[in-house]
Amino acid sequence: MSNHTITAPRGFEAGAAMAGIKQANRLDVGVIASEVPCTAAAVFTRNRFCGAPVIVGREHVRDGCLHAVVVNSGCSNVATGRRGVADARAMCRRVAEGIGVDETDVLPSSTGVIGQFLPMDKVLKGIDRAVEALSGSARAGRSFARAIMTTDLKVKQATARFKIGKEVVTVAGCCKGSGMIAPNMATMLAYLTTDAGVPAARLRTFLQAAVEPTFNRVTVDECESTSDTVTIMASGLALPLDSRKAEICFAVALGEVCESLAYQIAADGEGATRVLEVSVTGAKTPADAHAAARTIAVSPLVKTAVHGGDPNWGRIVQALGQTRVAYQPERVVIRLDKTTLFRKGAPAPDLDRRKLSRMMLQKHVSIAVDLGAGKACDRVLTCDLSRDYIKINADYTT
Amino acid sequence: MSNHTITAPRGFEAGAAMAGIKQANRLDVGVIASEVPCTAAAVFTRNRFCGAPVIVGREHVRDGCLHAVVVNSGCSNVATGRRGVADARAMCRRVAEGIGVDETDVLPSSTGVIGQFLPMDKVLKGIDRAVEALSGSARAGRSFARAIMTTDLKVKQATARFKIGKEVVTVAGCCKGSGMIAPNMATMLAYLTTDAGVPAARLRTFLQAAVEPTFNRVTVDECESTSDTVTIMASGLALPLDSRKAEICFAVALGEVCESLAYQIAADGEGATRVLEVSVTGAKTPADAHAAARTIAVSPLVKTAVHGGDPNWGRIVQALGQTRVAYQPERVVIRLDKTTLFRKGAPAPDLDRRKLSRMMLQKHVSIAVDLGAGKACDRVLTCDLSRDYIKINADYTT
Repeated sequence: MSNHTITAPRGFEAGAAMAGIKQANRLDVGVIASEVPCTAAAVFTRNRFCGAPVIVGREHVRDGCLHAVVVNSGCSNVATGRRGVADARAMCRRVAEGIGVDETDVLPSSTGVIGQFLPMDKVLKGIDRAVEALSGSARAGRSFARAIMTTDLKVKQATARFKIGKEVVTVAGCCKGSGMIAPNMATMLAYLTTDAGVPAARLRTFLQAAVEPTFNRVTVDECESTSDTVTIMASGLALPLDSRKAEICFAVALGEVCESLAYQIAADGEGATRVLEVSVTGAKTPADAHAAARTIAVSPLVKTAVHGGDPNWGRIVQALGQTRVAYQPERVVIRLDKTTLFRKGAPAPDLDRRKLSRMMLQKHVSIAVDLGAGKACDRVLTCDLSRDYIKINADYTT
Repeated sequence: MSNHTITAPRGFEAGAAMAGIKQANRLDVGVIASEVPCTAAAVFTRNRFCGAPVIVGREHVRDGCLHAVVVNSGCSNVATGRRGVADARAMCRRVAEGIGVDETDVLPSSTGVIGQFLPMDKVLKGIDRAVEALSGSARAGRSFARAIMTTDLKVKQATARFKIGKEVVTVAGCCKGSGMIAPNMATMLAYLTTDAGVPAARLRTFLQAAVEPTFNRVTVDECESTSDTVTIMASGLALPLDSRKAEICFAVALGEVCESLAYQIAADGEGATRVLEVSVTGAKTPADAHAAARTIAVSPLVKTAVHGGDPNWGRIVQALGQTRVAYQPERVVIRLDKTTLFRKGAPAPDLDRRKLSRMMLQKHVSIAVDLGAGKACDRVLTCDLSRDYIKINADYTT
C-alpha cells in the first residue's frame, strides 16, 4: 500500500527520461502506459490558441479509449502551426511503436514556453528512453510526476482507495501547475489512473463532475493556459463499477484526488507563501456565487495584502463591489476566518488590526462573504501574490 | 502663459493644507473654488461599494452646477455606512461656509484606505486652512495636485489652450491614480477646469466623450476603485462655445488634457518602469477590439515579461486565446512595435530575441494585434508589473 503515485492502480506503468529539452539533468519526458486498453476521458483548455497536443489529444480521446499518455516539459508546442501538429503526432507514434499499440490510443501533452518548435530529435530519443524505463514501481510514478513539472517547486500527487467487498479500488493522480492558472476547464496538466472498470461515457461524466468544483476553482494568475489537459484512464483490472454504491465510492475517491491536487496547485502557485480560500454564501444563483468568489480571489490588491499580512480588508469590499452579481451592500457580511470584518455597510466595531494581521499570515487564509441574497454558494482557491511571482515571470525564457 | 495647473483657466483658485490625515508634513486636503457659479459635469465609479463622497457627489452635481470641490487623501471614506455619508456632507458644508456658497454646490472626494472613518477634526481644520490658502497662482494649483496624491510618485497635470478670434480658452486638469486602476468609468480622481462657457448638458456630453477613449482605457491592476470621480467645472469667463468651430476646438483640447493625464497615470502605475500600449485592429466590433486589447493589457504574464524584457511573446498569444471575441487564429498578426512576431498560426521566421528584449525595455512598449476579422479598433494603456507593485501593496496600511 506504499505506492501513492499514478502507478498505484493495477495495470499502469510509468517511465521518464532526461531529454535535455528543459535543462540539463532534469527529467522532461514522461510516459504512462497501461497493460490493457483503457476506457478514457479528458477535458481540455478553452483557450482559442490551444496547443498542437490539445488538437491531437482531442482527436485521440474521442473514441473513449487510450493506452498511453506522453508528456514533455520545457516547450509547450503552442502557436506552432502545422509543424506543431505533425510533431505532436510524431510523439504519439513513437510511443505507440515502443509499446506496440495504435498511435491514436496515445494522448500527447507538452508544457513550457509558447511559440517555439519542439526539438524533435531530443524529444524522440527521450521518449525511447522513457518507454525503456517503464515500470509499475512507486519510483517510476514519482519520476513521471517530476518530468511534467515546469515552474512547480513540488511534486503533486494524490491517491484514494475504497473497498467493495474484499476488492480494493484505487484512484491516483499527479499534476503540474503553478503559473498561467485560471479556472476555465482544466487549468493545468493532470493525469488520473484507476483500476476501476468504467464505461467511457460514464467516465466522462465522472471526470467533468470532479473537475468542476476542484481544478475549475483554482486560480493563480487568471491566465488560462493554452495546454490545459486533465485525463483519466481506467484499466478495469480491479472491479467494474456495477452498483450504485460502487459508483458513489468512485465519485468520492475521484473528487478527493482532484481536490488534493487542486489544493497542491494553489499552495505551489508561483511565488506563493500561503493558500487563500474565498467562500461565498447567500448568493442568488450559483453563477453569482462563483463570480463573487472569483473576483475577490483574482484581485492583486487582496492577494498582496494577504502576502504582507496587511489587514487592509477594504480591498475585499472593493473587489466585491466590482462584480455585477445580485446583492444589497448593506446586507453583505465579510469574515476573515471567523472574525466579522464588515456588516450593515460599515466596519465591525472593535477590530483588532494586529490579530487580523496574524490571521492573514497563516498558511491557510479564509475569506468568507455572505451576500444575503439567496442560498447559492461556491468557493475558489488561490494563493498570495509575492515578489517571487514577478521574479519567476520577468525572465522566464531568458 | 506659465500656469499649467488647474488655476490656469480664468476664475479658478486652489488651496491645500497639511491636515495630518495621510502622514505628518504632507499635503492631504485640497479645495478648488470658482469666483463664479460654474456649469459642471462628472462621471463616477461603477463599483457597487462606492464611497460616501461618490454618493454625495452624484447628488450635488445632478443640477449641473458646482462652485467648488473638496478632496482629502489618506482615507477614502468607503464602506463607512451612514456616518461616512454624514462626514462627506460635513466636508461640503465647511467649504460652503468658508467661501459663502451653497453646500450642494460643492463636490467632495476622498481617497486612501477603505473601511476607516475620516478623522473629522483633522479634516475640518484642514479644510479651513485650505480655504484660507485659496489663490489663483500656479503654485496653488500645484499644491492642490499634490494634496490629492496617495501612492502616486508624480504630480499629474495637463493644460491645453485654443484661440477663437483673439480670445484664448484654457482647459486644465490634474489627477491622482496609481493603483486600483481599471477602465470602468473614471478609474481615479481627476479635476478639470475651463474658462469656456458650456451649458451643463453639453458639458456632460463633452466629458463622457473625452473620458471614454482616455481614462476608460487605462488599467494598472484591473481593480475598479470605489472612489473614482472625474469632474469638470466651466466658469464661462473666457468665451461661450457658440460656434461649431469653438465646440470642436474645445472637444480637442479636453481630449488632449484627458489623454495626457491618462498616460501619466499609466506611467506612474504602482511599481511601473514603462508604459505598455496594446492596440487592436481588424476586430469585428468595437467591443471585440476593446476586449482583446484589455485581456492582453491585464495579463500579469505579459506585464511581467515586459518588465523583465523577456521576449516571451507566446504570452500575448495565450492572453488573446483567452478572449471570446471573433477571429480565426491563423489570421491573427501580432507585432511588437513594427516587428512581426506571429502570423499564419506560427512564429515569424528569424526572430532576433536579443532585439526583441531590447525593444521591450524601452520606456514605451507597443503591442499591436490585427485580428483580421473586421474594421474595428481600440487600444488600452497599462504599465509593466514589477516587484515594487507587490512591495507597495503588501503593506499599505501597516
